[in-house]
Amino acid sequence: MTPTASSTYDDVIYLDYNATTPLDPRVLEAMAPYNLSLFGNSASRHLPGIAAADGTENARELVAALVGAQRQDIVFTSGATESNNLALLGVAAASGEYRRHLITVATEHKAVLDVLAALGSRGYEITVLVPDRSGWLSPDKLAAAIRSDTLMVSVMGANNEIGTLAPVKNIGRLCRSEGVLFHCDGAQLVGKLPVDVDESNIDLLSISAHKMYGPKGVGALYVRRLTPISPIFYGGGHERGLRSGTLNVPAIVGFGMAAQLVSSEMQADMAHAEELRRQLVLELQRAFSDLEINGHQTARLPGTLNVRLPRIDGESLQLATPRLAIASGSACTSAAPEPSHVLRAIGRTWDEAQECLRLSYGRFTTPTEIESAVKLLYEAAQRLGRTNRKEADR
Amino acid sequence: MTPTASSTYDDVIYLDYNATTPLDPRVLEAMAPYNLSLFGNSASRHLPGIAAADGTENARELVAALVGAQRQDIVFTSGATESNNLALLGVAAASGEYRRHLITVATEHKAVLDVLAALGSRGYEITVLVPDRSGWLSPDKLAAAIRSDTLMVSVMGANNEIGTLAPVKNIGRLCRSEGVLFHCDGAQLVGKLPVDVDESNIDLLSISAHKMYGPKGVGALYVRRLTPISPIFYGGGHERGLRSGTLNVPAIVGFGMAAQLVSSEMQADMAHAEELRRQLVLELQRAFSDLEINGHQTARLPGTLNVRLPRIDGESLQLATPRLAIASGSACTSAAPEPSHVLRAIGRTWDEAQECLRLSYGRFTTPTEIESAVKLLYEAAQRLGRTNRKEADR
Repeated sequence: MTPTASSTYDDVIYLDYNATTPLDPRVLEAMAPYNLSLFGNSASRHLPGIAAADGTENARELVAALVGAQRQDIVFTSGATESNNLALLGVAAASGEYRRHLITVATEHKAVLDVLAALGSRGYEITVLVPDRSGWLSPDKLAAAIRSDTLMVSVMGANNEIGTLAPVKNIGRLCRSEGVLFHCDGAQLVGKLPVDVDESNIDLLSISAHKMYGPKGVGALYVRRLTPISPIFYGGGHERGLRSGTLNVPAIVGFGMAAQLVSSEMQADMAHAEELRRQLVLELQRAFSDLEINGHQTARLPGTLNVRLPRIDGESLQLATPRLAIASGSACTSAAPEPSHVLRAIGRTWDEAQECLRLSYGRFTTPTEIESAVKLLYEAAQRLGRTNRKEADR
Repeated sequence: MTPTASSTYDDVIYLDYNATTPLDPRVLEAMAPYNLSLFGNSASRHLPGIAAADGTENARELVAALVGAQRQDIVFTSGATESNNLALLGVAAASGEYRRHLITVATEHKAVLDVLAALGSRGYEITVLVPDRSGWLSPDKLAAAIRSDTLMVSVMGANNEIGTLAPVKNIGRLCRSEGVLFHCDGAQLVGKLPVDVDESNIDLLSISAHKMYGPKGVGALYVRRLTPISPIFYGGGHERGLRSGTLNVPAIVGFGMAAQLVSSEMQADMAHAEELRRQLVLELQRAFSDLEINGHQTARLPGTLNVRLPRIDGESLQLATPRLAIASGSACTSAAPEPSHVLRAIGRTWDEAQECLRLSYGRFTTPTEIESAVKLLYEAAQRLGRTNRKEADR
């Protein structure tokens, strides 16, 4: 234990669950024996190895159950970024010459957009659809983009910045009827709202553990049987040849426990997040009368609120509230100085995007924290004063 | 805690350190705060994020120091398999059309051989050198294989199955003078014996945490400045664009602590392993008079002993000693039924290879465990009796 560390950050109000969630203590407890007595390599054919393999297979069952999948269709990876890469690069590599068109949306995570850009530079054709101003992708728009050479559609289940959901079932039905593969980046959706790969005709689903109270460094890709896919790593042939490398047993076991917990507590977690959201919106509106909410009004994650505070610079506000952990851009893009590509894609101007904040919360957030957070924001905004960029620019 | 688990495996003698080492309790202690209070995303620009980033940067310094590198030349990955893939695929992708010849050795890990096979199928030419019967690669043999279009030489620092070392300094000097890149898979070497990337002219070095008392799910690739290399993952541009994805902060912090510990305790660890090896060889020779030792007599890891017990089937012996965790093949190849490619490459016949066992041990192994292990093997061999395959085949 680093005593300085915990004492320094114990008084921080953490409202950045979409960047990473706290680890549920029950997850840590499930992992503990696999760090110590059950530390074997799951590929070893002796008792410690078999115990480790049992732990991973049990976790595989739990992760599969969370999304209505079969155990054997879950591939463990190092996280959702790797899962997205495996889904997109792996399917492209396995799919030959005839279908080289892929469709995605401008509000996707960089872990999809950057991979597709890489495929674009290798001769694939990428269509990037623009959603409406709430971040909503209309299935009709998608239908119009599908061509005879379309290989795959990649649409995230829920947006990490504004929380808008995708019409996953409609997209799945459409893709299935058109004979196009459907990859869904479920990093922000799975564990927060119900997902069923069969019901939604999802062929590939990326899952992250550390966005659902599980450990960092582990994720999964659901791959529907018979989906053409090649590995992006080689060496050893673990995970049915799709992902080589010693399995991260403790993290996988923790992932399994996290999946079990979000599964059994989903109704409670959802209700709690809705309650917090209601409170947060009310109190923010009281503090900032001209508050604007980004994202869809109903098709949205309960635990994400993205707001614009007109004429208040988001980053300055963030810096002025050191006790408050929130995001002013996407936390996943390290040191990118430009405003969020998501906010720009839904029609926010450069200036408006810089006036936006993302608050995300969940299982361990309390109403008192929400109250204190709004108070901190209000006080900081009072101290900072409002800017009028247009005037300042003149 | 799973009480059954720890009670079931507490009485196992673990001599499979090359598959994975136990986690040093001090590593777990260093990780603990990053699982709980300091759980932030290291890319977030708020206090919890900054604390997480500080933890990773401190660990980067420690891992770099272990191999004489600069902090900024260490890229964190999910493990040595990914590091090998990044080194080989990444350099190949960045290196254009003129140099498409790579050289490796038949005794490399599958995480190198399989990657090179994949490059082979993409039009690269791969030369696989055969070492001598001790697993030793003569620098002269390597020198003769280097051509004007050779891009890279990939040679492991120490063999995972037989423990034979490579003449790393000679290889590095040779590669440097020929203008060829040198990738070293250091998964089994780093942390066990001193390695200095500058002294050995190593351009790319793969490092694993869970082979040096650190956590699973994390590794590193050292990349010498100006080495042409492309990422194999996309999305977010973490790790200076070379490895996207949320950093596995607790594991990276644990990796740093593990690096610090193997660095400060290397002399003691080496002496301890040499002592155990001496004891193990003596007692095994007493129990099995016709024992044969695989691997180099002097250029070898102290903590690895690979032996042949003539006319005793290794896997049967392994099955007959459930309290003993040892390897009969390579533990990293999941469920591969054929005998080790390493033993075949050093000239062992198919039958001989099946009579081989790998015992690997380290920091936490006691002389009493070595004594008990040999006793268990001896008793099991007595029970099993010896087979004579040639007669049985007739």
